Amino acid sequence: MAVYIYEQLFQFTERVFKSIGCSDVDALKATEVLLSADLRGIDSHGVARLSGYIRLWQAKRINAVPNMRIIHETPSTAVIDGDAGLGLVVAPFAMQVAIDKAKAVGTGWVSVQNSNHFGIAGYHAMMALKEEMIGIAMTNASALVAPTFSTEKMLGTNPIAVAIPAGEQPPFVADFATTTAANGKLEILQRKNEDTPVGWVQDQDGNTSTDANILKKKGALLPLGSDREHGSHKGYALGSIVDIFSAVLSGASYGPWAPPFPAYIPMPENMPGKGLGHFFGALRIDAFRPASDFKQHMDQWINRFRNATPAAGYEKVLIPGDPEREMELIRMQLGIPLVDAVVNDLQETGAIFNIHL
Amino acid sequence: MAVYIYEQLFQFTERVFKSIGCSDVDALKATEVLLSADLRGIDSHGVARLSGYIRLWQAKRINAVPNMRIIHETPSTAVIDGDAGLGLVVAPFAMQVAIDKAKAVGTGWVSVQNSNHFGIAGYHAMMALKEEMIGIAMTNASALVAPTFSTEKMLGTNPIAVAIPAGEQPPFVADFATTTAANGKLEILQRKNEDTPVGWVQDQDGNTSTDANILKKKGALLPLGSDREHGSHKGYALGSIVDIFSAVLSGASYGPWAPPFPAYIPMPENMPGKGLGHFFGALRIDAFRPASDFKQHMDQWINRFRNATPAAGYEKVLIPGDPEREMELIRMQLGIPLVDAVVNDLQETGAIFNIHL
Repeated sequence: MAVYIYEQLFQFTERVFKSIGCSDVDALKATEVLLSADLRGIDSHGVARLSGYIRLWQAKRINAVPNMRIIHETPSTAVIDGDAGLGLVVAPFAMQVAIDKAKAVGTGWVSVQNSNHFGIAGYHAMMALKEEMIGIAMTNASALVAPTFSTEKMLGTNPIAVAIPAGEQPPFVADFATTTAANGKLEILQRKNEDTPVGWVQDQDGNTSTDANILKKKGALLPLGSDREHGSHKGYALGSIVDIFSAVLSGASYGPWAPPFPAYIPMPENMPGKGLGHFFGALRIDAFRPASDFKQHMDQWINRFRNATPAAGYEKVLIPGDPEREMELIRMQLGIPLVDAVVNDLQETGAIFNIHL
Repeated sequence: MAVYIYEQLFQFTERVFKSIGCSDVDALKATEVLLSADLRGIDSHGVARLSGYIRLWQAKRINAVPNMRIIHETPSTAVIDGDAGLGLVVAPFAMQVAIDKAKAVGTGWVSVQNSNHFGIAGYHAMMALKEEMIGIAMTNASALVAPTFSTEKMLGTNPIAVAIPAGEQPPFVADFATTTAANGKLEILQRKNEDTPVGWVQDQDGNTSTDANILKKKGALLPLGSDREHGSHKGYALGSIVDIFSAVLSGASYGPWAPPFPAYIPMPENMPGKGLGHFFGALRIDAFRPASDFKQHMDQWINRFRNATPAAGYEKVLIPGDPEREMELIRMQLGIPLVDAVVNDLQETGAIFNIHL
């Protein structure tokens, strides 16, 4: 374990993205998006993934100089072809289109085809906050999740993020995988050689498992709810909605055909669309009521929930976004800790381009 | 237990609504919405609730002749004041506004204040299907759910419905409470004098409970995910998003201040808004891609998921909406079974207006 200051990781990552041919603007944006995950404590989606993006570029599955463009639109909607660009660049471009449409007609909704992994959904949703808008971001991903009653991996962890501005209070920012546990949590247990709790994963026959390595043995992650009795059909429905909004609306590849993140896995056969899909929404607050009224009531909402009676052993009730915001303050000041495996991985990636961490 | 044909229940219910002063059009619509729950097998939200609506009218909390109106709008958004009307009437009115806006600018988004319980969310979302649109409906409700780490009931079961059209396949229709189990499932166990599974409810101290009557003993329903380890913070976030979109955006009463459904419970003090809130969305398919392309891919999506490898003991994987659609076919043909308590309740309600079931 070593700790790196944000600026150091930023410069390193930016140079790597420039080395694969990204423009200065794109390299800066991709770095900002990627590192927002490390700052917010979602370590699985930050620099730990840099080598994965580079391998996708080496495999010619990522285009460093994409011609991103709107291929269909109405006053409140657009579909964007990401031209196989880095999702880290395509997603902010698409979210900006949603924001611009919201400025014009109240809300904007953008579905994206032909993209790749876009980092954390929360970054993109939060772009709306400074515009006094609610932001929504979601994406499909390669299949790791079995629907209720199935043993077959059909859906990605398909996250949803919703960012809602407040007044004096910090914003409400929910950002979560539509599974009981995100894949990153399994990876942490794998490194520690520990079991998962019951309800996170199942084995190849659909039986309960606590093996953190079960995905490599034809097992699957479970939808939020874990099993039918505890509402897994709801998590399955949520993951499906994300898949359909992101990929069927846009013309991306959906369900078990979503392209894999690891470059060594062959692309699925008979893909029904292009690349990964995302979906973004922006809702202008004053398209519903004066922003000052809304913010005052959001402050009251947040205060009331934060002061709800805590259960024994807990100090207070959290508002979605609290833990990540606190982590960001700490890591901006004290640096970002990286496990040795990630440091080695970054150094090997840098070495390809003669860049030292 | 007795079985009633749909038409008989329809005529009875319609006459009751007319008796409280609803117009012919409103009585017809309210009946259609209410009974859609019985047809689809969501018995807790159908005629079993008729007496509850009538008691709210007697308590002057429901206005049978509301002046529903748009109080704020942009090309893609509106806020509607339901004028304390039956949610069963206000909601279809608001969803129609969302659909009309989608016709004009691609999508329509409507937040509603000053309403009441609107029946099943799925009915309203499904209004979009015949327009070749995706429909979304959600509502807040009186507080029965404790946030993660809390013992205090702060949120309703706050359902979300999403209806997505297909081509030759039936539509995808998800309609679910953002809790592990809906309150109606507790009521069924109460009648049978049975315990709940672990993970549905907690007691007044926040400890796990299996007492189906725990809500009457200061206990609470749990958010989807059940506990922190299984993602209850995600269910809590989802329920919160429904509350904020439905009530903070519109100016309705939110969180623990949401008005109660039972008329004998006093209204909360210092309510921050008017009545219950709802939120509706309509997205025109061809605002994203040609409807024929979308439908063809939705058919492929549905076929692929329906044919995913089933786990041992299961015949096939279900698509959201499958069980309710099958139930509707059965009940239209064979009638709607009502438990004796509901029959007695309907007869007592009818007697007020000299109407016989």
